[in-house]
Amino acid sequence: MRELNETHDPSRRSWLEAANRPDCDFPIQNLPFGIYRRIAPGPRGDEPPRGGVAIGDHILDLRAVLAAGLFSGEAARAAEAACGATLNPLMSLPRPIVSSLRARLSDLLRIGGPDSELLRARASELLLPTQSVRLELPATIAGYTDFSCSYTHMGGMRGGEPASIFFRFPIGYNGRASSIRPSGFAVTRPRGQWTAGAPAAGPLAVDAEVRFGPEPRLDFELEFAACVGQGNTLGSSLSVDQAADRLFGYCLLNDWSARGIQQLEMGGLGPFLGKSFLTTISPWIVTDEALHFAPLDLSVAPANRPSRHTLTASAMHEREA
Amino acid sequence: MRELNETHDPSRRSWLEAANRPDCDFPIQNLPFGIYRRIAPGPRGDEPPRGGVAIGDHILDLRAVLAAGLFSGEAARAAEAACGATLNPLMSLPRPIVSSLRARLSDLLRIGGPDSELLRARASELLLPTQSVRLELPATIAGYTDFSCSYTHMGGMRGGEPASIFFRFPIGYNGRASSIRPSGFAVTRPRGQWTAGAPAAGPLAVDAEVRFGPEPRLDFELEFAACVGQGNTLGSSLSVDQAADRLFGYCLLNDWSARGIQQLEMGGLGPFLGKSFLTTISPWIVTDEALHFAPLDLSVAPANRPSRHTLTASAMHEREA
Repeated sequence: MRELNETHDPSRRSWLEAANRPDCDFPIQNLPFGIYRRIAPGPRGDEPPRGGVAIGDHILDLRAVLAAGLFSGEAARAAEAACGATLNPLMSLPRPIVSSLRARLSDLLRIGGPDSELLRARASELLLPTQSVRLELPATIAGYTDFSCSYTHMGGMRGGEPASIFFRFPIGYNGRASSIRPSGFAVTRPRGQWTAGAPAAGPLAVDAEVRFGPEPRLDFELEFAACVGQGNTLGSSLSVDQAADRLFGYCLLNDWSARGIQQLEMGGLGPFLGKSFLTTISPWIVTDEALHFAPLDLSVAPANRPSRHTLTASAMHEREA
Repeated sequence: MRELNETHDPSRRSWLEAANRPDCDFPIQNLPFGIYRRIAPGPRGDEPPRGGVAIGDHILDLRAVLAAGLFSGEAARAAEAACGATLNPLMSLPRPIVSSLRARLSDLLRIGGPDSELLRARASELLLPTQSVRLELPATIAGYTDFSCSYTHMGGMRGGEPASIFFRFPIGYNGRASSIRPSGFAVTRPRGQWTAGAPAAGPLAVDAEVRFGPEPRLDFELEFAACVGQGNTLGSSLSVDQAADRLFGYCLLNDWSARGIQQLEMGGLGPFLGKSFLTTISPWIVTDEALHFAPLDLSVAPANRPSRHTLTASAMHEREA
C-alpha cells in the first residue's frame, strides 16, 4: 500500500483551474476528506453536516455525486461511508476500498478522465465554493494520545535533562478528546493556578508564589496528527507490519498550552489542565495514500511540484525545532 | 437537592421480597440505573441494549413500564430518556426531572404505593430476573479523569515524597475513556517494557535491566467514580455551587494497573500504557440522590439499614488506606 500510483502523477491537472495554481493547498494530487455544513442564512439555519473532498477553491459534495450515479463498486461503497455527518465510517473501511474512491475522484476531476465531462457539466450542482460552507470536526474522536517526538522538547518541558527512558519507547500521555475542535475555534484563556514571574528553568520551588486567574503564558505547539481509523480488539496486539494500514490519514494539530498552569501541575501526574482547555485540528484529513512519495526530482518545474499538502510532514520537524 | 425525602425512608419495603433482605444490594432506597441486554439464545442472538432499574434480584424494564402507561409527566420524560441503549440522555436531564422518576419508581415498587398493585399484577412482563440479562456499559463515556485523593497514595506512586502541590489543587490525569468496560470483562495481562526484580522504592535507575513481555506485577486500585451528566460549554466555568448538580451518580471503578510498565513510564509524562489497557466499572449507576444521608441512627435495626449501596462511598477510603 506504499507504492505511488497514477493519482500521485505530478503532471495530472484538474479541469477546475483553481486546483492547478502553484499556491493552492488542494491540487488534484491531494484530495483530502472533510465534513462541512452549507451556510444557509435564514430561520432554518445551517444544513446538517456532510462529507466532502477539497479540490482547488471548491468542495465536492459526495452525497450529490453518489446520487448522480457517478460512483460504482468499491468507490461507491467508500463514498457512502464518507458522505454522512462524520468520517468515522470511511476511516474504518479497509484501505483498498478507500483507495478505490481516491482513484475514481482523481479520474472525475482530472482533465481527460473517464466521466470527467459528465461531472464538469453538472459542476454547479455537485461542487460548492469553499466560502459557502463551515468546516466541522471531521470525525468523532474517541481517544487522543499526545507523543513527544523530540528529545530536546522533552528536556524543555521538564525544565532540565530529558528522561533517560526517551530512547526506550514513545513517551506520551492521554489528551482530552472531548476538547478537540476544528481550526478557527475561538480560544478562551483558561483560568487556573500558576506561578508569578518568569518561567523557571528547573522544577517549581516549593515556596513559589501561586496566583489564580487567566493564564498569563498561553502558547501552542504545532503538531502532526495521525488519525487511526480501524481499531483493534481490547487485549489484542497489532504487529509493526499491521500498524501502517491502520493510519487513515493526517492533519495538523495545535496543542494549545497554558504554560503557567502546566508548569505548576507537571510535578503531579503530567500534563492535564494546562492542555485540556482546547486542542484544535485542521478540518481536512489528508489520506496516508496522498502522502506516499518518491525521491524528490529537483528537475520538476516548481508549478508541477506537489504543493503545500506536504506541509503536514514538515510540521513534525517544526515541533522538534 | 441535598435533602432527604420519602424515597430514603428506611422503613419503606418493596412488595418484591428479595429487595427487603438485609444482604441485598438493591433495596427500594437504592434504585440504580443500568443498561442490559436480555440473553436470547438462538440464531438471532441477544436483544439490543436498553435501560432498567435494579430492584432486589430483578430489573425493571423501563420501556415496558412506559408502554404500560405507568409513568406520566416529568417521570415519563425521564423514563423515555432512560430506556434507550445508553443512559446519556437521562444523565443530561435537569436534576428535578430525574428525581421525579425516582419518586415514581419508589411508589410503584413499594408496598402500598399508588399504582403499585397495577405493576405487581404485571410483574412477570415488566420485571426480568437479573440472571436472564447481560449488563453493559451504562453510558457512552466521552472522557475520564483519574484523581489522586490521598497524599499517601501520591507518595507511593512517586516512590518517595508526595508532590508539594498536593494541597493546592486536585492532582489528576486524563485516563483512556475508550478502554473502559463493564465489571466482569476478561482481563488480559498487557505486554510491554518493565524492569526485572522487585519494585524499586525510588525513581528508576538509569541502568536498570528492562525486559519486554507480559506485565509481571498486575494489580488494581479500587476507586470511587463520579459520573458527570450535564456538560458545560468549552471555555466557560462552573461555580462551586453549580458543580454538585452536574453529578448524576456514582459507581465503583477498578483502575487496572500494570505496575512494572507504569514504573518505567512514570519518569515521562505520567501514567499511560500501565493504565490504558483496561478500566472496569460497576454496571449500575447509583444516583447522587440515593446517597443523600442523615446522621447515622444506630438504634435502627440492621435489617432496616441501607445496605451495601453505601459501599461506593467507603471505596474512596479503601483507596486511601
